[in-house]
Amino acid sequence: MKTDAWVIAKAARGHYDPSCLRWEPRELPPLADGQVLVQTLFLSLDPTSRNWLKLEPHSTFLPLKVGDVMIGAAIGRVVQSRSPGFAPGMLVQGMWGWAGQSVADPRFLEPIEPQAGVPLEAHMTIFSHIGRAAAIGLFAVGGLKPSDTVVVSGAAGATGSLAVQIAKAYGRRVVGVAGGPDKCRRVVEDFGADAAIDYRAGNLAEALARTCPDGVDLFFDNVGGEILDAVLDHMALGCRIAICGAVSQYDLADPADAYGVRNLPLLMFRRARMEGFVVPQFADRYAEFDAILRSLFLAGRLRNRPHVIEGLEGAPEALKLIFNGGNDGKLMVRVAAP
Amino acid sequence: MKTDAWVIAKAARGHYDPSCLRWEPRELPPLADGQVLVQTLFLSLDPTSRNWLKLEPHSTFLPLKVGDVMIGAAIGRVVQSRSPGFAPGMLVQGMWGWAGQSVADPRFLEPIEPQAGVPLEAHMTIFSHIGRAAAIGLFAVGGLKPSDTVVVSGAAGATGSLAVQIAKAYGRRVVGVAGGPDKCRRVVEDFGADAAIDYRAGNLAEALARTCPDGVDLFFDNVGGEILDAVLDHMALGCRIAICGAVSQYDLADPADAYGVRNLPLLMFRRARMEGFVVPQFADRYAEFDAILRSLFLAGRLRNRPHVIEGLEGAPEALKLIFNGGNDGKLMVRVAAP
Repeated sequence: MKTDAWVIAKAARGHYDPSCLRWEPRELPPLADGQVLVQTLFLSLDPTSRNWLKLEPHSTFLPLKVGDVMIGAAIGRVVQSRSPGFAPGMLVQGMWGWAGQSVADPRFLEPIEPQAGVPLEAHMTIFSHIGRAAAIGLFAVGGLKPSDTVVVSGAAGATGSLAVQIAKAYGRRVVGVAGGPDKCRRVVEDFGADAAIDYRAGNLAEALARTCPDGVDLFFDNVGGEILDAVLDHMALGCRIAICGAVSQYDLADPADAYGVRNLPLLMFRRARMEGFVVPQFADRYAEFDAILRSLFLAGRLRNRPHVIEGLEGAPEALKLIFNGGNDGKLMVRVAAP
Repeated sequence: MKTDAWVIAKAARGHYDPSCLRWEPRELPPLADGQVLVQTLFLSLDPTSRNWLKLEPHSTFLPLKVGDVMIGAAIGRVVQSRSPGFAPGMLVQGMWGWAGQSVADPRFLEPIEPQAGVPLEAHMTIFSHIGRAAAIGLFAVGGLKPSDTVVVSGAAGATGSLAVQIAKAYGRRVVGVAGGPDKCRRVVEDFGADAAIDYRAGNLAEALARTCPDGVDLFFDNVGGEILDAVLDHMALGCRIAICGAVSQYDLADPADAYGVRNLPLLMFRRARMEGFVVPQFADRYAEFDAILRSLFLAGRLRNRPHVIEGLEGAPEALKLIFNGGNDGKLMVRVAAP
């Protein structure tokens, strides 16, 4: 049996170009013991998808090479199963190929429990690597404390907007950094931040000093580069910086264009900690973070914001939206109707 | 009663110039209740002394301003005391003025217990902020693990050479980074590192790859800048970076000359942690670190390396040695004979 798939044609160097992927029918191998065949329903497009396409050993979570089917987070339905935990017809989420159907490794597969009041898309926008990243960055890495002033970069983005909403639900003072007045308005009005900073306005330092007069206690960083450098200069004593992403540095024309962060020596004077994380490293604590997300969502504190592109064929082109600021909510591709 | 003192004449901007300090007799105020008058015996010159002279709020541990007597770590003898823990004649260490005699705050004063086999200078070279910094960086901040490959920058310096020796005494693989073949030879022969890297040789990346084939697990950084950037690119998964100093960035002609670190996004991919510290923040654990230092020193595992300059008059000029690589061991000024 064949399935349509996006196959890695070449490593993506310089500015992202969808031609690093090619559309190609692929033969599905027979299921080995333990494997599960899934029909993809939704496919997640993430900043990190672009990094994986670099095919560099340090920028990928799973090893990928030219000729492999591109992979990503996804929601699907079990078609066939040789794994005891998964029966045909079950809804699942996890990580598998950019393809109509995929043979999935059950290590990267979780059943979705349908729940009243929780639309299927919310298992991509919130109950997923997105919501878990927000919770991990704030609680497990950031060590959120009662009196913290929290700054979130990429605050209008999929993960950042959740980090803002969670920190607000926990009663913290929150300042969101986003690009442009429209996104900044939504960071305050829709996601509840106490203030928003438009990093494009060219007054980051002044705006941080004004909105965080006692300094930044916790910085949830999705962007890196000059925003990170500016926050380093406004750290309160004992500041914690959770590095969830560095989207400003993922799609450079030339690696030599990487932004050079100058304020690192302040980590010492401010006794501050900066820590990078990826979601799977906290797999043994998912239940804890999922419970936080579920209770906040059911209490109406977290917005479900899917930005849905129709059809797997458009996935490589749609990934551009992440780097030109064109996405509004969690970017995902609808591959098939549930 | 008057004492000779070095008074801050102006904030030190650009390359360090000793004229930011002026030699001036100062009247000693009468002792208030709780205070202690000490005769300075040894005065410590540290990279951070230069930072304090910037008089910037973020670069100083205690607030200093123009007209204040410069302060630093010191060893002395109690002359008069209105504090119950300190009697005239006692040897003490702590922090007080760059002056022949000083009124010291007992919060920054500890008695020195004379011990057989421990010369007085060792209370500056090892049993001091220097040895404590080495132990804190490796254990409390760095979380030294049995299988760690440890890299130490400034490995021939006062703190770095102790970090190398402690990590070796604990059986770790240790690579020291230093400037020039002579210092590198001593990092291996005198301090016991498994390998040394001469950062001036211009092949940092290649040398790190060769000496740390499985990546760097713990980086004890005294230098910052390009060495830090190169190590970031060679982190093992779960790497910890203890920022003890950033001496390459303290004495810039212009703040715009600060080195821009480009490899921070790798913190995320490598799930790595970078944490700055200052010694006093661990004051409640000094006994633990002192016990480690004492037992290693008495077992002959730590070298006592004082670099003694004679006379308080020469202190501002001698501070230059830290930034031109001219010091050999812990730089200190002998103010008076014990």
